[in-house]
Amino acid sequence: MDLLSVYKEVDALESEIIETRRDFHRYAESAWTEFRTTSKIVEFLTAQGMKVAYGRQVINPEYAWAWPGVEAAKKQQQRAIEQGASAELVENMQYYTGAVTVIETGRPGPVIALRFDIDCNDVEESKEDFHRPYKEGFCSVNANMTHACGHDGHSAVGMFTAALLNKHKDELCGTIKLLFQPAEEGDRGAVAMIKTGILDDVDVVLSSHIFNSPNGEYGLAGTQTCLYATTKFDINITGKSAHAGFAPQTGNNAINAACVAVAGMQSFLQDGRGSGRLNIGTISGGSGRNVIAESCHLRAETRGSTTEVEQRLYKAAIDIVDGVCKAFGCSYTTEIKGICPTGNGDLDLAEKIAKAAAKIPDFKYTQTELAQTGGTDDFSCMMDAVREHGGKACYMALMTPLKAGHHNRSFDYDEGALKAGVKAFITVVDMLQKEYK
Amino acid sequence: MDLLSVYKEVDALESEIIETRRDFHRYAESAWTEFRTTSKIVEFLTAQGMKVAYGRQVINPEYAWAWPGVEAAKKQQQRAIEQGASAELVENMQYYTGAVTVIETGRPGPVIALRFDIDCNDVEESKEDFHRPYKEGFCSVNANMTHACGHDGHSAVGMFTAALLNKHKDELCGTIKLLFQPAEEGDRGAVAMIKTGILDDVDVVLSSHIFNSPNGEYGLAGTQTCLYATTKFDINITGKSAHAGFAPQTGNNAINAACVAVAGMQSFLQDGRGSGRLNIGTISGGSGRNVIAESCHLRAETRGSTTEVEQRLYKAAIDIVDGVCKAFGCSYTTEIKGICPTGNGDLDLAEKIAKAAAKIPDFKYTQTELAQTGGTDDFSCMMDAVREHGGKACYMALMTPLKAGHHNRSFDYDEGALKAGVKAFITVVDMLQKEYK
Amino acid sequence: MDLLSVYKEVDALESEIIETRRDFHRYAESAWTEFRTTSKIVEFLTAQGMKVAYGRQVINPEYAWAWPGVEAAKKQQQRAIEQGASAELVENMQYYTGAVTVIETGRPGPVIALRFDIDCNDVEESKEDFHRPYKEGFCSVNANMTHACGHDGHSAVGMFTAALLNKHKDELCGTIKLLFQPAEEGDRGAVAMIKTGILDDVDVVLSSHIFNSPNGEYGLAGTQTCLYATTKFDINITGKSAHAGFAPQTGNNAINAACVAVAGMQSFLQDGRGSGRLNIGTISGGSGRNVIAESCHLRAETRGSTTEVEQRLYKAAIDIVDGVCKAFGCSYTTEIKGICPTGNGDLDLAEKIAKAAAKIPDFKYTQTELAQTGGTDDFSCMMDAVREHGGKACYMALMTPLKAGHHNRSFDYDEGALKAGVKAFITVVDMLQKEYK
Amino acid sequence: MDLLSVYKEVDALESEIIETRRDFHRYAESAWTEFRTTSKIVEFLTAQGMKVAYGRQVINPEYAWAWPGVEAAKKQQQRAIEQGASAELVENMQYYTGAVTVIETGRPGPVIALRFDIDCNDVEESKEDFHRPYKEGFCSVNANMTHACGHDGHSAVGMFTAALLNKHKDELCGTIKLLFQPAEEGDRGAVAMIKTGILDDVDVVLSSHIFNSPNGEYGLAGTQTCLYATTKFDINITGKSAHAGFAPQTGNNAINAACVAVAGMQSFLQDGRGSGRLNIGTISGGSGRNVIAESCHLRAETRGSTTEVEQRLYKAAIDIVDGVCKAFGCSYTTEIKGICPTGNGDLDLAEKIAKAAAKIPDFKYTQTELAQTGGTDDFSCMMDAVREHGGKACYMALMTPLKAGHHNRSFDYDEGALKAGVKAFITVVDMLQKEYK
Repeated sequence: MDLLSVYKEVDALESEIIETRRDFHRYAESAWTEFRTTSKIVEFLTAQGMKVAYGRQVINPEYAWAWPGVEAAKKQQQRAIEQGASAELVENMQYYTGAVTVIETGRPGPVIALRFDIDCNDVEESKEDFHRPYKEGFCSVNANMTHACGHDGHSAVGMFTAALLNKHKDELCGTIKLLFQPAEEGDRGAVAMIKTGILDDVDVVLSSHIFNSPNGEYGLAGTQTCLYATTKFDINITGKSAHAGFAPQTGNNAINAACVAVAGMQSFLQDGRGSGRLNIGTISGGSGRNVIAESCHLRAETRGSTTEVEQRLYKAAIDIVDGVCKAFGCSYTTEIKGICPTGNGDLDLAEKIAKAAAKIPDFKYTQTELAQTGGTDDFSCMMDAVREHGGKACYMALMTPLKAGHHNRSFDYDEGALKAGVKAFITVVDMLQKEYK
Repeated sequence: MDLLSVYKEVDALESEIIETRRDFHRYAESAWTEFRTTSKIVEFLTAQGMKVAYGRQVINPEYAWAWPGVEAAKKQQQRAIEQGASAELVENMQYYTGAVTVIETGRPGPVIALRFDIDCNDVEESKEDFHRPYKEGFCSVNANMTHACGHDGHSAVGMFTAALLNKHKDELCGTIKLLFQPAEEGDRGAVAMIKTGILDDVDVVLSSHIFNSPNGEYGLAGTQTCLYATTKFDINITGKSAHAGFAPQTGNNAINAACVAVAGMQSFLQDGRGSGRLNIGTISGGSGRNVIAESCHLRAETRGSTTEVEQRLYKAAIDIVDGVCKAFGCSYTTEIKGICPTGNGDLDLAEKIAKAAAKIPDFKYTQTELAQTGGTDDFSCMMDAVREHGGKACYMALMTPLKAGHHNRSFDYDEGALKAGVKAFITVVDMLQKEYK
Repeated sequence: MDLLSVYKEVDALESEIIETRRDFHRYAESAWTEFRTTSKIVEFLTAQGMKVAYGRQVINPEYAWAWPGVEAAKKQQQRAIEQGASAELVENMQYYTGAVTVIETGRPGPVIALRFDIDCNDVEESKEDFHRPYKEGFCSVNANMTHACGHDGHSAVGMFTAALLNKHKDELCGTIKLLFQPAEEGDRGAVAMIKTGILDDVDVVLSSHIFNSPNGEYGLAGTQTCLYATTKFDINITGKSAHAGFAPQTGNNAINAACVAVAGMQSFLQDGRGSGRLNIGTISGGSGRNVIAESCHLRAETRGSTTEVEQRLYKAAIDIVDGVCKAFGCSYTTEIKGICPTGNGDLDLAEKIAKAAAKIPDFKYTQTELAQTGGTDDFSCMMDAVREHGGKACYMALMTPLKAGHHNRSFDYDEGALKAGVKAFITVVDMLQKEYK
Repeated sequence: MDLLSVYKEVDALESEIIETRRDFHRYAESAWTEFRTTSKIVEFLTAQGMKVAYGRQVINPEYAWAWPGVEAAKKQQQRAIEQGASAELVENMQYYTGAVTVIETGRPGPVIALRFDIDCNDVEESKEDFHRPYKEGFCSVNANMTHACGHDGHSAVGMFTAALLNKHKDELCGTIKLLFQPAEEGDRGAVAMIKTGILDDVDVVLSSHIFNSPNGEYGLAGTQTCLYATTKFDINITGKSAHAGFAPQTGNNAINAACVAVAGMQSFLQDGRGSGRLNIGTISGGSGRNVIAESCHLRAETRGSTTEVEQRLYKAAIDIVDGVCKAFGCSYTTEIKGICPTGNGDLDLAEKIAKAAAKIPDFKYTQTELAQTGGTDDFSCMMDAVREHGGKACYMALMTPLKAGHHNRSFDYDEGALKAGVKAFITVVDMLQKEYK
């Protein structure tokens, strides 16, 4: 491809890219409920003349961790249709979200997979004047759903990357798969896509994520080890209810047990081998004020800069729940809702990407390292899956100034980086294909 | 009245009393949502030719603590109508529940108030075969609503007591007010009725409650000091959300703060002056698994055998929340949802009641004392209100074998005591009127 | 006996009684280390011409719970001798403390045992001007040892009761055993005396304890159920040390485990069946600031108004230690240091005592009930031991104004009650003997 | 110097070096009590004809953090003399420990300071057969004192480095100061030496520490940022005592407050900016089993890979103590016992050291980086002090196989590295002097 010429095409599309991102931002959809987002992506790609598989076709339900169920899906489908999704497409989805389009050039060449995540966070968006999405009118209209991790931009980047690669199909070789993955939050969607076999023949898998640029300029970092390992899990504690006044001793207080366990599990965060995280994201227990609580439910996650650090924390969390529950006469169950290894990119690939991207005018800098920040991305699973059969993988950090941290209700970013993101994917595809020859 | 003859009338009504109780049990309604129950009571009393005030007429909304609001009321009204409430009556209620009927004899005599509570507990009823209401088909059809404190029986006793007193109106003197009070659970409804002025001219106020009979026989206990003091309160902790992986240190974890506070507040339960209770009935916090929780909400209560014991516990609970929240960088608010003093009956009245009730054949024993058991009842407020202007008050324990403790999901009682309860009220009214003369 | 005449003798001895009490107060000795106290008692009784058994002769070492060992005993013997104990007597004690004298009248009559406890508390006495023992110069000179429970007075009462009964021996019948018991604090000494067989032939066993007089006047209460059940126990948690900076994850933190367990065990204090107590009296753990603590030692006790309440708390405390230790990778051991049942006196005896004591001029009131206050006394074990073979028992409360609560570092009492205490014992002995005839 | 020839001299001294180390190991002395160690060092250096300042002469008492006081010093001096210290030298020390010797060559050249720490850990040494010091008879004879951090070896290395540099004095230029620093554990002794002015004219300051060699071979690492920041602090919680049975509500339980605070402060360990440590090294509270604890004392430390991480943890620990104490009605005080910044060596100096040391035959590898491991060393303060006036500093890791981690009761190391350590100091001094010319 004539990259400089393509860059100009991207620049000409900038306002459309930004519009797309803002539309997704406005109609933010939580993990596994991205019916409108999927519908819009499918409509867009189809309009480009591309063939798209979507919904149930691109998901292996057996691995759809923490999928909310048919009833919840129906309710969200209804909402999505009211917010502009195509009723026909939504029905075809069969309760699952996500989309895949494949560009077959017919010419020998590498099989490259580009992955874009599309879901939002379970956070209520800021409604304060300093928050640009609110001030400029594209704040999320969906309660407790906010694009606070940039997946709105990732989706837009993916769509226009797909359109442009398709447009220049004749200048390309090999196969390019574009995966629009649902449910990255919670590390739940990647394996469900992998288990359809979509990556089985892939030589190189790439994804990018928006990160803060410390110096305020756009940049690109190919990365080697920036992603933490994680386990997402639920804990259900079951005690016994009783009248809180008459006979508290006959009850087994599930809330008290949970609180002692949560306080106790913080003692295991120190580890000389690396850095760990433990979060009780939600807690919910009890039925009435004057009833000893019969149950308490926790949604939790552990993270670690190495899998051993993460697994020690996970085990300690379960152990303290086990010990405390026994003492309180409660029982408990745990349920794994997602697991990710540490994410390791290939250094040689990262170096090639940095070199290629250095020629993109938008970027003021490129680099091959990004410090571990505690983040996880189930793209780790895709990287492992491709490497298992000898492929290569790299996670690319798209550096752009952030207004507030990831997952914060006031998260926002400089959208000028989006067109740079499109250019980066196209440039790297071009580089990989040239290298193949 | 010819009591022996009235007792026979009561015996003849037993199956109706039990049917009524089971109907209420099946359609159990939580505090402030007793639209169907109120409707049924109003219809029954009206059918006896009695005049009934109900809903908004018998409630002072200013004191309707923890009233769930118009939206919730509308939803529950709809449910109630679907379950057989009169749509017209429900509309007249103007979102509030409860009923009052007054028997004016026109003859000089005491003003006596009899109070019956009508709401259920926020508990999911047992669906196990050993649970009679389930096995015999009158288990609650409403999710998380169960008559696990006997108010279904109290309501039925009240209705038939009213009917019979009305039938024998010509043999009575003075005035008899029958109060069907909503929202006893949570100690929320009594003051809302008191503040309408309904008790201002009352000489004697009485209520009864079903208690377990240790020896398996029916009995009646007039009681002096069996009710604990209590405060019902909510605690709302507000922290700051953050990405649990990237920057946990920038968040203020409301769930962790809540858990440390809940664990910490258990240290204040010992008191040489009396017995105390502290219950965190419900906990709910956080928005997403990978987000530092921004908020956590607790519904709590303290109780005490004396008000000083109860107030020390309440203060300690708030103090530890205050201290821990400061340390965690969180703020908090507390909201009082109900307050009750200790419930003190008049011993002389209790003795007269025991003596009069001893003649009721159903009762194998009567007594004038009942050990404090940790229970509270906002009838305490009614007792204080009547005593404030020189009246007398007594809380009567209707002793009958229980299958499981109060507020337990398998709570059930021997219904044979219900007709004894009706007789008790009639007998005591008769005694009070005779004494007046 | 001519009681009025004996009362005058007691009045004449008042300043000596008080001097004796103050001497004991000044040289307060902890449980099992009462070498000087024992020496002084033996010298006094011997000077009255009485025969005294003491030390090892009156203690069954097998049951000397929490006895500190020979090394500690030697050190305390040395201290006692320096503070005026007889070196010869101390040597004869063979490391054990306590004394028994028996008045054999040679005439048929009841065998009566009077028990006086002699040890102090492990508390540092107040050195503030408002504290009379400090201001008037009889403050304890022994570090962390204070007579903060009145046993100094009990000892003095016992000595002068013995002297006077011995003086009037010819007017008495039967046998009177006077037991000066060590190690009441911690409920450790009574069983060690019982197991020598000293109570095997006893018909009536009596003890008294100083309590606060609410109305500021002297009084005597025979009591029926005032003593709680208790278990005294130690918990030793063993973890694994590690460098707190390099490798905290390789350690098992015994202090953190202890703290989580202690916070957690407070959740079990509520019981509808009665009142409970749980106290972690001392904690001690860790070796150095920068070392993960390898061990933590707790000295604890549970109490209950009934044995079932107490035992539930004890079991819950062990259970939470068990559960938390497992989670923290720690092991633990527990050691029982003393056990006492609830203390039940005989009501008929209490009534007789109250009637007899009502004639003592010092007392403004007598009564047969004393509310349970959470106190324990291993006299409970003596009461049970005597009752086991058909005897009677009563615990007498000597009511006198207190300056601060029991075990408080500023505990002090109105010494005027001491002579009343002597009179009470003599009066009751007289009553019991007269009744025998 | 002819380094190869000097290396041979070192090799010939190996058994003496090891003997010296084992002697110090056997008579391990805690921070500020190294009277015997100081005496031995002074005697040895004096025997070499060197002038030595020691004790009070080399310590500024104003900065002797956590110095145990004159009484404790006297007791330890007595012990030291019994264990072979010179009574005269000990007296001259005037209660303080440590020694300094200065080699003045009289020739122009750099002022180099070499620092060796001499104190042991407050840990009870392993008495198990697998523990070589125990098996081979040089296990510590002092209770709760163990060389579990290698300072016995550091001291021996320092003594022989001093002897050899002194022997080759004529081949050297400039000034070489050898500092034998007490009380490194707890980060307490360095500032007390600095504040005597001893480093004011120093151009280069060096120290070394024994670290584990992952590959089992000897090595040397010049290091840039391996030391954490730390604060050592005590927390004293004061409550109010009360009888645990009678009136627990009148007490303010200092142990319960401490436990809730310790459990609560673990919630602040996560930080996206770096790694932190929090350790409650010791806890001690309460006076008696049946007394509500009046006080509880904690010895604590925080550490961080950056000062901001460390300070956040420190502040959070104090904040939770503050909040919990308020709630429990307790007061508290905190006392800083030592503060250290992060330790940053000069990279250029580290590189030169690595290069020079690579020629020492004992070392199989040298490097210029050492991962942060959570360790602290108050040598950080010396590095900062020298750099403040333009000097250079480096902390050298002497890599040798360890049997167990630092501060573990079974800590032991391969002593073959000791002679390598002597060679390293001599080699680096030689390099610095040659470079100067």
